[in-house]
Amino acid sequence: MRVLGIDPGTAACGYGVVQSADGAMRSLDFGWWSTSPDLTLDQRLAAIHDRVTELICDYRPEAVAIEESYVGVDARTALSVGQARGAILVACAKSGVSSAQYPPATVKQAVCGFGRADKQQVQRMVAATLGLGEDPSPHHAADALAVAICHALGSPLLAAAGAAT
Amino acid sequence: MRVLGIDPGTAACGYGVVQSADGAMRSLDFGWWSTSPDLTLDQRLAAIHDRVTELICDYRPEAVAIEESYVGVDARTALSVGQARGAILVACAKSGVSSAQYPPATVKQAVCGFGRADKQQVQRMVAATLGLGEDPSPHHAADALAVAICHALGSPLLAAAGAAT
Repeated sequence: MRVLGIDPGTAACGYGVVQSADGAMRSLDFGWWSTSPDLTLDQRLAAIHDRVTELICDYRPEAVAIEESYVGVDARTALSVGQARGAILVACAKSGVSSAQYPPATVKQAVCGFGRADKQQVQRMVAATLGLGEDPSPHHAADALAVAICHALGSPLLAAAGAAT
Repeated sequence: MRVLGIDPGTAACGYGVVQSADGAMRSLDFGWWSTSPDLTLDQRLAAIHDRVTELICDYRPEAVAIEESYVGVDARTALSVGQARGAILVACAKSGVSSAQYPPATVKQAVCGFGRADKQQVQRMVAATLGLGEDPSPHHAADALAVAICHALGSPLLAAAGAAT
Protein backbone atom coordinates (compact mmCIF):
# COMPACT_ATOMS: atom_id res chain seq x y z
CA MET A 1 0.00 0.00 0.00
CA ARG A 2 1.24 3.46 -0.86
CA VAL A 3 0.18 6.41 1.29
CA LEU A 4 0.82 10.13 0.92
CA GLY A 5 0.93 11.80 4.32
CA ILE A 6 0.33 15.53 4.69
CA ASP A 7 0.97 17.79 7.67
CA PRO A 8 -1.06 20.83 6.62
CA GLY A 9 -0.63 24.52 7.27
CA THR A 10 -1.24 27.75 5.36
CA ALA A 11 2.39 28.85 5.65
CA ALA A 12 4.17 25.48 5.46
CA CYS A 13 3.12 21.90 4.69
CA GLY A 14 5.05 18.67 5.19
CA TYR A 15 4.64 15.63 2.96
CA GLY A 16 5.83 12.05 3.08
CA VAL A 17 5.23 9.07 0.80
CA VAL A 18 5.32 5.67 2.44
CA GLN A 19 5.21 2.27 0.73
CA SER A 20 4.30 -0.81 2.76
CA ALA A 21 4.70 -4.34 1.50
CA ASP A 22 5.23 -7.72 3.19
CA GLY A 23 5.21 -6.17 6.64
CA ALA A 24 7.99 -3.69 5.83
CA MET A 25 7.72 0.00 5.17
CA ARG A 26 9.96 2.39 3.31
CA SER A 27 9.89 6.06 2.40
CA LEU A 28 9.72 6.98 -1.26
CA ASP A 29 10.01 10.70 -0.63
CA PHE A 30 9.50 13.30 2.04
CA GLY A 31 9.97 17.03 2.46
CA TRP A 32 8.05 20.21 2.89
CA TRP A 33 7.06 23.31 1.05
CA SER A 34 6.06 26.78 2.05
CA THR A 35 3.83 29.35 0.39
CA SER A 36 5.06 32.89 0.06
CA PRO A 37 3.53 35.43 2.46
CA ASP A 38 3.55 37.81 -0.53
CA LEU A 39 0.76 35.77 -2.13
CA THR A 40 -2.87 36.51 -1.34
CA LEU A 41 -4.67 33.94 0.79
CA ASP A 42 -6.49 32.42 -2.18
CA GLN A 43 -3.24 32.10 -4.11
CA ARG A 44 -1.58 30.38 -1.14
CA LEU A 45 -4.46 27.93 -0.88
CA ALA A 46 -4.34 27.28 -4.63
CA ALA A 47 -0.58 26.63 -4.31
CA ILE A 48 -1.28 24.07 -1.56
CA HIS A 49 -4.00 22.47 -3.70
CA ASP A 50 -1.67 22.30 -6.72
CA ARG A 51 1.27 20.82 -4.79
CA VAL A 52 -0.93 18.07 -3.33
CA THR A 53 -2.37 17.34 -6.79
CA GLU A 54 1.20 17.15 -8.15
CA LEU A 55 2.31 14.74 -5.41
CA ILE A 56 -0.74 12.53 -6.10
CA CYS A 57 0.12 12.55 -9.83
CA ASP A 58 3.79 11.76 -9.17
CA TYR A 59 3.32 8.95 -6.64
CA ARG A 60 -0.19 7.62 -7.33
CA PRO A 61 -0.91 6.82 -3.65
CA GLU A 62 -3.88 4.65 -2.75
CA ALA A 63 -4.77 7.08 0.02
CA VAL A 64 -3.90 10.47 1.42
CA ALA A 65 -3.56 10.69 5.21
CA ILE A 66 -3.85 14.14 6.75
CA GLU A 67 -2.78 15.10 10.23
CA GLU A 68 -5.60 16.83 12.06
CA SER A 69 -3.49 19.68 13.36
CA TYR A 70 -4.29 20.58 16.93
CA VAL A 71 -6.33 23.76 16.81
CA GLY A 72 -6.99 24.17 20.52
CA VAL A 73 -9.85 26.44 21.34
CA ASP A 74 -8.80 29.37 19.19
CA ALA A 75 -11.41 29.92 16.47
CA ARG A 76 -9.03 32.06 14.40
CA THR A 77 -6.40 29.32 14.22
CA ALA A 78 -9.08 26.74 13.49
CA LEU A 79 -10.40 28.82 10.60
CA SER A 80 -6.93 29.10 9.07
CA VAL A 81 -6.20 25.37 9.50
CA GLY A 82 -9.64 24.59 8.06
CA GLN A 83 -8.91 26.64 4.93
CA ALA A 84 -5.67 24.73 4.24
CA ARG A 85 -7.42 21.44 4.89
CA GLY A 86 -10.23 22.43 2.51
CA ALA A 87 -7.69 23.07 -0.26
CA ILE A 88 -6.05 19.66 0.37
CA LEU A 89 -9.34 17.75 0.53
CA VAL A 90 -10.51 19.31 -2.75
CA ALA A 91 -7.23 18.13 -4.35
CA CYS A 92 -7.82 14.57 -3.05
CA ALA A 93 -11.43 14.42 -4.23
CA LYS A 94 -10.63 15.91 -7.65
CA SER A 95 -7.81 13.37 -8.05
CA GLY A 96 -10.12 10.52 -7.04
CA VAL A 97 -7.97 9.46 -4.08
CA SER A 98 -9.58 8.63 -0.75
CA SER A 99 -8.46 10.64 2.24
CA ALA A 100 -8.48 10.09 5.98
CA GLN A 101 -7.71 12.43 8.83
CA TYR A 102 -6.02 11.42 12.07
CA PRO A 103 -5.67 13.39 15.29
CA PRO A 104 -2.05 13.84 16.46
CA ALA A 105 -2.59 11.54 19.47
CA THR A 106 -3.74 8.71 17.17
CA VAL A 107 -0.67 9.17 14.97
CA LYS A 108 1.70 9.16 17.96
CA GLN A 109 -0.04 6.13 19.43
CA ALA A 110 0.38 4.25 16.13
CA VAL A 111 4.00 5.29 15.50
CA CYS A 112 5.47 5.55 19.01
CA GLY A 113 3.13 3.38 21.05
CA PHE A 114 1.88 6.23 23.18
CA GLY A 115 -0.19 9.27 22.37
CA ARG A 116 1.88 11.92 24.10
CA ALA A 117 5.24 11.29 22.44
CA ASP A 118 7.25 14.42 21.75
CA LYS A 119 8.48 15.58 18.35
CA GLN A 120 11.95 14.02 18.70
CA GLN A 121 10.48 10.66 19.65
CA VAL A 122 8.24 10.82 16.58
CA GLN A 123 11.25 11.63 14.37
CA ARG A 124 13.25 8.70 15.81
CA MET A 125 10.45 6.18 15.49
CA VAL A 126 9.69 7.31 11.93
CA ALA A 127 13.40 6.86 11.05
CA ALA A 128 13.46 3.41 12.67
CA THR A 129 10.21 2.26 11.05
CA LEU A 130 11.29 3.37 7.58
CA GLY A 131 14.96 2.37 7.94
CA LEU A 132 16.19 5.91 7.32
CA GLY A 133 19.85 6.61 8.02
CA GLU A 134 18.97 9.71 10.04
CA ASP A 135 15.96 11.36 11.64
CA PRO A 136 13.75 13.00 9.01
CA SER A 137 13.54 16.75 9.30
CA PRO A 138 12.07 19.28 9.54
CA HIS A 139 9.23 18.35 11.91
CA HIS A 140 6.66 19.00 9.17
CA ALA A 141 8.17 16.22 7.02
CA ALA A 142 8.51 13.83 9.96
CA ASP A 143 4.90 14.46 10.97
CA ALA A 144 3.76 13.82 7.40
CA LEU A 145 5.66 10.51 7.28
CA ALA A 146 4.19 9.63 10.69
CA VAL A 147 0.59 10.14 9.57
CA ALA A 148 1.32 8.12 6.40
CA ILE A 149 2.73 5.28 8.55
CA CYS A 150 -0.32 5.53 10.81
CA HIS A 151 -2.63 5.05 7.84
CA ALA A 152 -0.51 2.26 6.29
CA LEU A 153 -0.44 0.38 9.61
CA GLY A 154 -4.11 1.12 9.88
CA SER A 155 -6.05 -1.56 11.66
CA PRO A 156 -9.73 -1.35 10.71
CA LEU A 157 -10.25 0.08 14.18
CA LEU A 158 -7.75 2.90 13.64
CA ALA A 159 -9.21 3.68 10.24
CA ALA A 160 -12.72 3.86 11.70
CA ALA A 161 -11.56 6.18 14.46
CA GLY A 162 -9.49 8.35 12.17
CA ALA A 163 -11.52 8.49 9.01
CA ALA A 164 -13.31 11.76 9.61
CA THR A 165 -13.82 12.14 5.87
CA MET B 1 -18.93 45.85 -12.40
CA ARG B 2 -20.14 42.29 -12.00
CA VAL B 3 -19.75 40.55 -8.62
CA LEU B 4 -20.49 36.98 -7.56
CA GLY B 5 -21.44 36.87 -3.88
CA ILE B 6 -21.15 33.65 -1.89
CA ASP B 7 -22.56 32.82 1.53
CA PRO B 8 -20.49 29.72 2.32
CA GLY B 9 -21.25 26.60 4.33
CA THR B 10 -20.40 22.91 4.12
CA ALA B 11 -24.06 21.86 4.03
CA ALA B 12 -25.56 24.76 2.05
CA CYS B 13 -24.19 27.75 0.13
CA GLY B 14 -26.01 30.79 -1.20
CA TYR B 15 -24.96 32.66 -4.33
CA GLY B 16 -25.95 35.90 -5.99
CA VAL B 17 -24.70 37.69 -9.09
CA VAL B 18 -24.98 41.48 -9.08
CA GLN B 19 -24.30 43.85 -11.96
CA SER B 20 -23.71 47.53 -11.25
CA ALA B 21 -23.62 50.20 -13.92
CA ASP B 22 -24.35 53.94 -13.96
CA GLY B 23 -25.17 53.96 -10.26
CA ALA B 24 -27.83 51.26 -10.59
CA MET B 25 -27.62 47.61 -9.58
CA ARG B 26 -29.51 44.58 -10.70
CA SER B 27 -29.43 40.88 -9.97
CA LEU B 28 -28.49 38.53 -12.79
CA ASP B 29 -29.11 35.40 -10.77
CA PHE B 30 -29.35 34.16 -7.22
CA GLY B 31 -30.09 30.94 -5.41
CA TRP B 32 -28.49 28.32 -3.27
CA TRP B 33 -27.26 24.76 -3.39
CA SER B 34 -26.70 22.06 -0.84
CA THR B 35 -24.29 19.15 -0.75
CA SER B 36 -25.60 15.72 0.16
CA PRO B 37 -24.77 14.51 3.67
CA ASP B 38 -24.25 11.10 2.03
CA LEU B 39 -21.07 12.41 0.40
CA THR B 40 -17.74 12.23 2.21
CA LEU B 41 -16.33 15.54 3.44
CA ASP B 42 -13.81 15.78 0.60
CA GLN B 43 -16.53 15.12 -1.97
CA ARG B 44 -18.72 17.82 -0.43
CA LEU B 45 -15.86 20.30 -0.57
CA ALA B 46 -15.10 19.34 -4.18
CA ALA B 47 -18.80 19.87 -5.01
CA ILE B 48 -18.62 23.38 -3.48
CA HIS B 49 -15.41 24.08 -5.42
CA ASP B 50 -16.99 22.87 -8.68
CA ARG B 51 -20.19 24.87 -8.25
CA VAL B 52 -18.24 28.09 -7.61
CA THR B 53 -16.03 27.38 -10.64
CA GLU B 54 -19.19 26.82 -12.72
CA LEU B 55 -20.76 30.10 -11.56
CA ILE B 56 -17.53 31.96 -12.40
CA CYS B 57 -17.52 30.35 -15.87
CA ASP B 58 -21.20 31.17 -16.45
CA TYR B 59 -21.16 34.80 -15.28
CA ARG B 60 -17.51 35.90 -15.62
CA PRO B 61 -17.59 38.19 -12.56
CA GLU B 62 -14.78 40.67 -11.98
CA ALA B 63 -14.67 39.65 -8.34
CA VAL B 64 -16.03 37.11 -5.91
CA ALA B 65 -17.22 38.46 -2.55
CA ILE B 66 -17.46 35.99 0.30
CA GLU B 67 -19.33 36.51 3.54
CA GLU B 68 -17.09 35.81 6.49
CA SER B 69 -19.58 33.67 8.34
CA TYR B 70 -19.66 34.37 12.04
CA VAL B 71 -17.80 31.53 13.72
CA GLY B 72 -18.02 32.75 17.29
CA VAL B 73 -15.54 31.14 19.63
CA ASP B 74 -16.24 27.52 18.70
CA ALA B 75 -13.10 26.02 17.12
CA ARG B 76 -15.08 23.10 15.65
CA THR B 77 -17.44 25.41 13.76
CA ALA B 78 -14.53 27.57 12.64
CA LEU B 79 -12.71 24.53 11.25
CA SER B 80 -15.75 23.49 9.25
CA VAL B 81 -16.37 27.00 7.92
CA GLY B 82 -12.67 27.28 7.09
CA GLN B 83 -12.78 24.11 5.02
CA ALA B 84 -15.68 25.39 2.90
CA ARG B 85 -13.95 28.74 2.51
CA GLY B 86 -10.74 26.99 1.45
CA ALA B 87 -12.63 25.14 -1.30
CA ILE B 88 -14.19 28.41 -2.53
CA LEU B 89 -10.92 30.38 -2.44
CA VAL B 90 -9.13 27.66 -4.43
CA ALA B 91 -11.89 27.89 -7.06
CA CYS B 92 -11.43 31.70 -7.25
CA ALA B 93 -7.65 31.54 -7.53
CA LYS B 94 -7.73 28.73 -10.12
CA SER B 95 -10.25 30.73 -12.17
CA GLY B 96 -8.09 33.85 -11.93
CA VAL B 97 -10.78 35.95 -10.25
CA SER B 98 -9.93 38.15 -7.30
CA SER B 99 -11.79 37.51 -4.07
CA ALA B 100 -12.59 39.56 -1.01
CA GLN B 101 -14.10 38.58 2.29
CA TYR B 102 -16.42 40.78 4.34
CA PRO B 103 -17.59 40.31 7.93
CA PRO B 104 -21.40 40.21 8.34
CA ALA B 105 -21.43 43.58 10.15
CA THR B 106 -19.64 45.25 7.22
CA VAL B 107 -22.15 43.76 4.77
CA LYS B 108 -25.11 44.91 6.87
CA GLN B 109 -23.61 48.37 7.27
CA ALA B 110 -23.17 48.67 3.51
CA VAL B 111 -26.60 47.31 2.57
CA CYS B 112 -28.83 48.46 5.43
CA GLY B 113 -26.89 51.40 6.86
CA PHE B 114 -26.31 49.75 10.21
CA GLY B 115 -24.28 46.73 11.22
CA ARG B 116 -26.83 44.95 13.38
CA ALA B 117 -29.69 44.69 10.89
CA ASP B 118 -31.67 41.45 11.14
CA LYS B 119 -32.14 38.94 8.32
CA GLN B 120 -35.51 40.34 7.21
CA GLN B 121 -34.12 43.85 6.99
CA VAL B 122 -31.27 42.54 4.85
CA GLN B 123 -33.75 40.75 2.55
CA ARG B 124 -35.87 43.90 2.18
CA MET B 125 -32.92 46.19 1.47
CA VAL B 126 -31.45 43.71 -1.02
CA ALA B 127 -34.83 43.57 -2.82
CA ALA B 128 -35.08 47.39 -2.83
CA THR B 129 -31.48 47.91 -4.01
CA LEU B 130 -31.82 45.41 -6.85
CA GLY B 131 -35.41 46.29 -7.77
CA LEU B 132 -36.65 42.77 -7.13
CA GLY B 133 -40.42 42.23 -7.06
CA GLU B 134 -40.18 40.31 -3.81
CA ASP B 135 -37.70 39.61 -1.02
CA PRO B 136 -35.04 37.14 -2.16
CA SER B 137 -35.09 33.84 -0.30
CA PRO B 138 -33.83 31.71 1.29
CA HIS B 139 -31.58 33.69 3.63
CA HIS B 140 -28.49 32.07 2.07
CA ALA B 141 -29.32 33.63 -1.31
CA ALA B 142 -30.22 37.02 0.22
CA ASP B 143 -26.94 37.04 2.19
CA ALA B 144 -24.99 36.19 -0.97
CA LEU B 145 -26.65 39.07 -2.88
CA ALA B 146 -25.94 41.35 0.10
CA VAL B 147 -22.20 40.59 0.13
CA ALA B 148 -22.09 41.06 -3.66
CA ILE B 149 -23.81 44.47 -3.27
CA CYS B 150 -21.36 45.34 -0.49
CA HIS B 151 -18.42 44.64 -2.79
CA ALA B 152 -19.99 46.43 -5.77
CA LEU B 153 -20.70 49.51 -3.64
CA GLY B 154 -17.21 49.12 -2.25
CA SER B 155 -15.62 52.37 -1.28
CA PRO B 156 -11.83 52.01 -1.16
CA LEU B 157 -12.22 52.11 2.62
CA LEU B 158 -14.66 49.20 2.67
CA ALA B 159 -12.48 47.20 0.32
CA ALA B 160 -9.44 47.80 2.50
CA ALA B 161 -11.33 46.76 5.63
CA GLY B 162 -12.98 43.75 4.01
CA ALA B 163 -10.30 42.41 1.72
CA ALA B 164 -8.83 39.77 3.97
CA THR B 165 -7.50 37.91 0.94
